[in-house]
Formats: sequence, C-alpha cells, structure tokens
Amino acid sequence: MQLRDTVLSIPEWEALIHRAEVGEVTEPLENVDHDDPSPYDAIFVGGGAGGRFGSAYLRARGGRQLVIDKWPFLGGSCPHQACVPHHLFSEAAREMDYMRWNSGTLWFGEFDEKRASIRDLVDLFKSGRNNAHAFMNWQSKEQLGMEYVLNAPATVVDAHTVEVAGRRYTTRSLVLGTGARTDVPPIPGIHLPGVFDFASLIEELNYEPSRCVIIGGSKIALEYGSFFQATGCQTTILSRSKLMRTASLHHVDEDLRTYVVDGMLKRGVEIHEGAEPIEVVGDGSVTGVRARLADGTETTIDTDFVFIGTGERPDARPYVTALGVDLDDRGFVKVDARMRTSVPDVYAIGDLIGAPMEMFKARKCGMTAARNIMGEPYEFDFSEYPDFLHTTYEVTWVGLTEAEARDRYDDVVVIQMPPKGLVDEIALPCAEGSMLYAFTRPELTGFQKAVYDGRSRRLLGAHHVGFGAKDAFQYLDHLIRKGITIDEMGEMNELFLNPDHFIQLSRLRAGNNDLVDL
Amino acid sequence: MQLRDTVLSIPEWEALIHRAEVGEVTEPLENVDHDDPSPYDAIFVGGGAGGRFGSAYLRARGGRQLVIDKWPFLGGSCPHQACVPHHLFSEAAREMDYMRWNSGTLWFGEFDEKRASIRDLVDLFKSGRNNAHAFMNWQSKEQLGMEYVLNAPATVVDAHTVEVAGRRYTTRSLVLGTGARTDVPPIPGIHLPGVFDFASLIEELNYEPSRCVIIGGSKIALEYGSFFQATGCQTTILSRSKLMRTASLHHVDEDLRTYVVDGMLKRGVEIHEGAEPIEVVGDGSVTGVRARLADGTETTIDTDFVFIGTGERPDARPYVTALGVDLDDRGFVKVDARMRTSVPDVYAIGDLIGAPMEMFKARKCGMTAARNIMGEPYEFDFSEYPDFLHTTYEVTWVGLTEAEARDRYDDVVVIQMPPKGLVDEIALPCAEGSMLYAFTRPELTGFQKAVYDGRSRRLLGAHHVGFGAKDAFQYLDHLIRKGITIDEMGEMNELFLNPDHFIQLSRLRAGNNDLVDL
Repeated sequence: MQLRDTVLSIPEWEALIHRAEVGEVTEPLENVDHDDPSPYDAIFVGGGAGGRFGSAYLRARGGRQLVIDKWPFLGGSCPHQACVPHHLFSEAAREMDYMRWNSGTLWFGEFDEKRASIRDLVDLFKSGRNNAHAFMNWQSKEQLGMEYVLNAPATVVDAHTVEVAGRRYTTRSLVLGTGARTDVPPIPGIHLPGVFDFASLIEELNYEPSRCVIIGGSKIALEYGSFFQATGCQTTILSRSKLMRTASLHHVDEDLRTYVVDGMLKRGVEIHEGAEPIEVVGDGSVTGVRARLADGTETTIDTDFVFIGTGERPDARPYVTALGVDLDDRGFVKVDARMRTSVPDVYAIGDLIGAPMEMFKARKCGMTAARNIMGEPYEFDFSEYPDFLHTTYEVTWVGLTEAEARDRYDDVVVIQMPPKGLVDEIALPCAEGSMLYAFTRPELTGFQKAVYDGRSRRLLGAHHVGFGAKDAFQYLDHLIRKGITIDEMGEMNELFLNPDHFIQLSRLRAGNNDLVDL
Repeated sequence: MQLRDTVLSIPEWEALIHRAEVGEVTEPLENVDHDDPSPYDAIFVGGGAGGRFGSAYLRARGGRQLVIDKWPFLGGSCPHQACVPHHLFSEAAREMDYMRWNSGTLWFGEFDEKRASIRDLVDLFKSGRNNAHAFMNWQSKEQLGMEYVLNAPATVVDAHTVEVAGRRYTTRSLVLGTGARTDVPPIPGIHLPGVFDFASLIEELNYEPSRCVIIGGSKIALEYGSFFQATGCQTTILSRSKLMRTASLHHVDEDLRTYVVDGMLKRGVEIHEGAEPIEVVGDGSVTGVRARLADGTETTIDTDFVFIGTGERPDARPYVTALGVDLDDRGFVKVDARMRTSVPDVYAIGDLIGAPMEMFKARKCGMTAARNIMGEPYEFDFSEYPDFLHTTYEVTWVGLTEAEARDRYDDVVVIQMPPKGLVDEIALPCAEGSMLYAFTRPELTGFQKAVYDGRSRRLLGAHHVGFGAKDAFQYLDHLIRKGITIDEMGEMNELFLNPDHFIQLSRLRAGNNDLVDL
C-alpha cells in the first residue's frame, strides 16, 4: 500500500494498523518516494526508538533515509509491549496501593480487591495502544518527512543493500536497530503455558492470575511484581542477587534500596534473595515453581502464573551471517562511541548493542549514528545516566551513591530527608502524591538524599523515592555533569512543595564555609 | 519555658505545640543562650519561611541571630494554614477527580460524592499539622543551631531593640518578616459567618458546605475552587478579570490558559469572568452572593459558603510607627535588592514586601538579608521565576509565553504536545498520572509547549499542564537563565516516559539548521 500521496488522520492510521494486526492487511505500508533518484544516506533496519529518532535526525540534517519495520507502525516495542504498558501498570499499581492504604477512610470506599484485575489492564492497554502507533506513523510522515516501509520484514543483503517487500534498496550506510528480547533462563518447564515475559503478558494473557512467582530480580521484576501485588495477586520474587544489586543497575544507594525493598515488603511482596529456581512445575500449564532458597532448603511455591524478570538478549545472527559484524560475549553487536560496528558503513544502535536498555540511549544512539553518517564526528558515552524504576513509588537516582562518594572523596556531605533516625516520626519529605500519607502514614512519604563533595562543593549524586521528581532528574543529570554546586542549588527557585527538597535543603547548608550533613 | 538544655523529640515537640495551641502553655518557648554575651547580628521578627531560612543562613555564616514568632512554632503560615493544606487539598482534588472519571470502571467502585467532605480534609489537616511544626522547631534547634523565642509576640522598639516576653534584646540589624493576610474586599456582608479565606477555612470551618461561591480570580481561587468542585460542592467563581490574566500572574501562555480553564469547565466549575460581586447576602450567616455579570445583568447565587480568592496585604503599621519605614502605595514595605528598607540596619523580607508570595522568594529574601548583614553584598532579583498552580492538574510555567516571545523575537519556534489541532485525537502527552487517561480519555492527558528563539536556538519558555513536571521546572528556570539551547536539550538523557516531553521533542528538531515548529 503506497501512502506517499495520502494524508491519513490519526483515526485512519489507527484503523489501518488494526487491520494489519488482525491480518486483514498483509501488504507493506509504504511511504517511499520512488520518483526521487537520489541515493539513501542510511537505511535503518528496525523502526523502534533508535531507528525513528535516527531517521528524524538524519532527515533534519538534509540526508535521505529509509526506515523499515516488520510491524505496521514505527516506535518499536516500547509503545507496543514494554515501557508504555509498564507505565500504565505502574500508574495503576500506585493508584491501587493508594486506594488500599486509604480504604474506608475519607472519600475512599472499601478497596475491592476482586475488581482489581491484571487481565483487564492488559486488555485496556491492547485496546488503546494503536493510538500511539498511529501518532508515530503520522508524525514521522507529516511532521518529520521520513520515508518508511512498515508491515514487512527487512533482509540485510550486504552493507549497502537491504531487501524488503520484494524490492532491493541500496544505501550508503546501514543502521541496525532491531532490539532484544527476553533471555529466557534455561530452567525445566520454563516454556509451559502460564509462564510469561513482558511481551507475552501483553499478547497472550487470557486468564486472571491468582498467585504469581517472578523468576529474576531485574528492574522489571520489581516493577511488574509491585503491580501484580497491588492488584491483590500475591507475588513472590525469586532473585539470585539482592534486589537492586544486580549488575545492570548501578549507583543504587543503600538507604534508597532499603526504603524501596522495605516498601515492597510492607505491601506484602514475598522476596527471596539468593534463591535459585530449579524447575517450573506443571501439568499442561504452570502449577508451581520449585526453588532452592538462600539457606539451602528446597521449596515449591504453588502458582498459576510465572513471570520472567531476567534480562534481555538480541538476535544478531542474521547480521553475523550477512555482514560478519562482531558480537560481544553476550551476543550484543559491538560498536564504538560513534555506533560503528566492525563492518565499514554499518552502524548498530539501541538494545541490540546492550545495556542500558533505556529509551534515551536508543534514541541518542540513533541520533549519534545519523550525525556520523552525515559527516559530523559525534560520540555518545552512555556509561553514566539518570535511572529510575517504579514500585508503587517512583524511584529515581543519578550520580554517585553515598558509599561510592566516600570511596572517592574524603569530605563527603550528605543532605537527606527524613534525617537519619526519623523515618517513622516525621511526615517529610512530602509533596504531590504523598500529601495524604503525610497526615495518615508518615512513614510512607518517601526518602531522598543528596550527596556533595565538601571540598569542591559539587553535587555528586541525588536519590529519590516518592512521586513527581522523576522528570527533574533529567535536568539534575545535566547539572551534575556541568559541575553544579551546593551554592548554585541554594540559589535556585523552588516550586514549593517541591517533590525533591534538594534546593531548599541545600540552601539551609550552603551558608557554611565548611559543609556539614543535614 | 527555657529549652536551651533540653532535646525534645519530634513527638515531644508535637505535644508541647499542641498544649500551647489549646492554651495550656501560655509562656514563651525559649531557646536562647543567655550566657553568651556576644551581640546579635540580627533579630528576625517573624519565624516564617524567610525568618527561618535567613536565620539558618546567618548562623551558617557564623553570625548570631534570634528569631521570634507569636506562634509556638517556626515555619509561619505555610505549614499552618497556607501552602501545606493547599497541597493536601490539591492532592485530594486530583484523586477525587481521577476516581470520578474512572468511576465504576476497572478497579474503581462508584465514586461516592457523599463521602467527599471538605470539612473532613480540613480536620485531617488540623490533626496533623503540628508534626511539620515540631520538625521545624527540632531542626532549627538541633541541626541548624538557631536561637528563638516562640509563642510570644515581638514588639519592635527601634532599629536595634526588640522586646519579647518581657525582655529587651539589642541587635546590630533587624529583619522584619511578619507576612501578609487576605485583603478582604469591601463588599457588604463580607464578614458574615460562612465567608472564609484560606486561613479561616482551616481554623473555623464547622459545617459541610453544600454550594460554593468564590469571590476573586487569583491563583488561590482556581486552586481552592478546583478542590471544592472535586468534592462535589458545586462551585462558582466570580472574577473581575479573565482567569489567569490577573496582574499577579505573569507569563501565562494562552494555549495553556485555555487548556486549564476548559479543564475546569469540563469538571463543572461555573466561571463568570468580568463579574462584579455586589453583596454577600445573609441572615445570620451567608445565603447567597449578589453579583453583576459581564453582560450587565444582576444575579443572586444561592450558597452557604463563600470563599475569598483575592490577594493579600501586610499589616506594616507597627513598623511605620516604631521605625518609620517607607511603604509602597499598596502598603507593602519598600526594600532594595538587598532587602534593605528605608531605615538603616532594618531589612524586610517575604510577603511583607509584596508579590510574589511564594516560598522560594520568602526563603531567598531571608538568605539575602543574612548575607548582606554578614558583610557580603548580595542582591536578589525575583522579577522572573518559575510559577505553578493546581487545578486537578499541576500547571507549571517558566520564561516567555509564545505571544511574548513573538513580540520580542522574529524567529520563534514552538514545539508542543499535542500538536495543534490534535488535542482530542491523541493520547499524548502522557506519563505518570495521565497514563490511564491516555487509554480512556485522551483529551485529559495534558498539554505542553516549549518556546525557542530560532536564531540563538535558546529555550525561551516552557509550559506544562499535567502531572509530575513541577519539580523539573525549578531546574528549567535555572537552565533558561544559563541560556540552554535546543541542541543541549536534545542531548540530555530523558527518563522515559517523562512527564515533560521537552527533551525528546527538542531532539526531533535539533538536527535542523533552521529550526521549525513541531
């Protein structure tokens, strides 16, 4: 279907994507200018975040691009199965948790656990996800001027040739960005019906789970686990490592970790750290998980729902076969800071090149590839970044933990709320999202900590559990890189009651020539 | 009661403040080092935000201070009657609104308006407010080392002498910070029982209002009006000017204003712009408000509850009498950028010097006075600042509106979400707080706009209606002052789904040499 000369509205796009998803439209959706004889500067294989942002940037720079995706929409797995449903579920988890703590008080009725359904939310998400897809197809075409072929898998022929929908396209550069998928742990029974990952949860869940076991202790395990528990589905997390002490999460402050994990325990999540899943037990479908716990005992947890909360791996084999790109020992495509693979003119971006599997990284990888392809030497170092996860809180952090700072600096100053020893006694921090807790359950209002170097007076790290500060951490990351000091922090204009109290707490100490804790 | 050598815990402080409030403790609460013969560098009259932060800064700089308040706690009206209850009510309003839109769907039961009570929330606030007071007394003494006399009014004798609790204290400088109070409009009947302002609402409400009329169109009118309406108390706002077009609110973008006011109308708030209240009608207590509407017709709105949503004025007469300080034509104490009044060694801070009556200003006024008193020339210009208000949304803005930018620059570029014309069609923007709306009522997910100068590529202004971006605007204000460009914005690391989409939207355009709208 050639869409070059057609402007579809958002509802029209939504309908078209739906027809493609249910198999009524099987032909490729093409927005390609076949009359333009100029060569492509880049073909992006994979239209997820990296491919789309890379395409936009390359177009903005005056280049010609083509982006190809097997799905009938641009945007990739995030709005289809990953970050968007996760955010919907996390908002639901926060809301259910809030309604539960306040059940039967003030304007809240009794919280009715029977109404809270995982399946209902999955179905709600599926019924609406094409709106975001439609918007991205619309925006990419009408606002960003991209060329694309959707609803058709690409075959990489060589570094300058891609085949899609029966046609070969040649290009100066190739950008690979086809993502990753759950690295299913090799446990007997792991493929039984009733075992899900974040993607199959969306596509396949057709019953209401009554009990949940999560295998793995990744960010996704905490996030989905908190959601399942909030719906009233008793959840057990089996994690080899301590929660938030996995290799993929860096800079997790111990006090923040304690607040987060204690918060999950308060809400009834059962957590086994140091546990080894041995077998997913079932007879036709899942009935339990057998595991060896940290103390060496074996146990079987009865469950009708298992969720895999381990990491992700790419499928890079087609690129090894067609191009000979080098992979690292975990199977990710190796790139340099310009996103160049081992093969000239071939770039790789996003989850395909490894952690962190975050949106900013995918998008900026795409931008980086585009800039280099268009002749601008540009490097992207994503070794440091602000990070977050959801439990029934928003948990955000950036920069050094207190312990890391003490390892590296000899005059570390910590400013935190609540002050050490006062967690249960005071209703601070609070702001939007935790005001009601401040007056009913002060111990639920959150936690925050800023870490400074007393000598240079620079902010080294910031750590927050609560609500409403996640957005700020994007800018705190930038400011920490620029060397922001406690004095500059204290001179900012806070929007009181600000979810992060860093500005005013910093001001209370900034007058000191020799900084001290608060 | 001399507390110098006693460490009270938070619960002990809470109990003591309570006893003072109910009249069981009438003596002053003193934390004064009477053995220290050194003179005071400053006495802060008024222990609100400005007095407390000024005291902390002066102490940190090595100065000696005394802060005095008539109330038995430091922190002033904010945690007692103003910003803290307002935030509690706004969180409740947001939650009630959310439960109402989702009533009877998913895990939400039917929203029961009869349970939603203004009085219950006022009572809840009053039952807990002493916790924040206790914390501030504790922190000011144990962490910040301040001297204070509480629960006793100060009398200013001259620029170097203050009397409190029967004792005279001499000081090198005097800092006045006793705030402001509602400027009650001179309307017949305005003093009838049933007419409240933000302070008397807290102290005196002893019935459940069934109908509300708000006189005035200030920020507080929108905020409290949205709350009253959310509880099911039908609310009418009578405003002389257009909402959010009052002199006290600057930089309100017209598209943002439209989204906010439309949102209030969608929720059933009745808004009369250009209306003139003529009389508060009543017989013993309020029964209605008579007003002239914009079209010249007169009407009487039956109501049992009137809320004054006009501005505030100080009571500066004692300082004129004792010191002869100059006032402006609205009665505020005149100061320069160092917070110096017309009288040598006398400073004034906070709401006493006029708008904006915001926390950051009060606190930074205190800091500014402290720095100058301690010999450091320091100026504070609060003519520009990030601003916010709550409806059932968080509404935040900083810098120039689109119209202001077009007046001053000839190549203005606007990047907004939803794009022009797509408000009801797409579920963007969304993030924490609006995810569920994205799948049920896309038109409720919010609005955001960034305004750039196409020539310098600098960010000129940012405007947001939604949830979770308020905290970020503190840092955006700082970054705009530093001249942040679209290119630097596009290189930041967003925490997707970020409530403000400014980073990624900027990145989609930053590749263009000639910037264009998005």
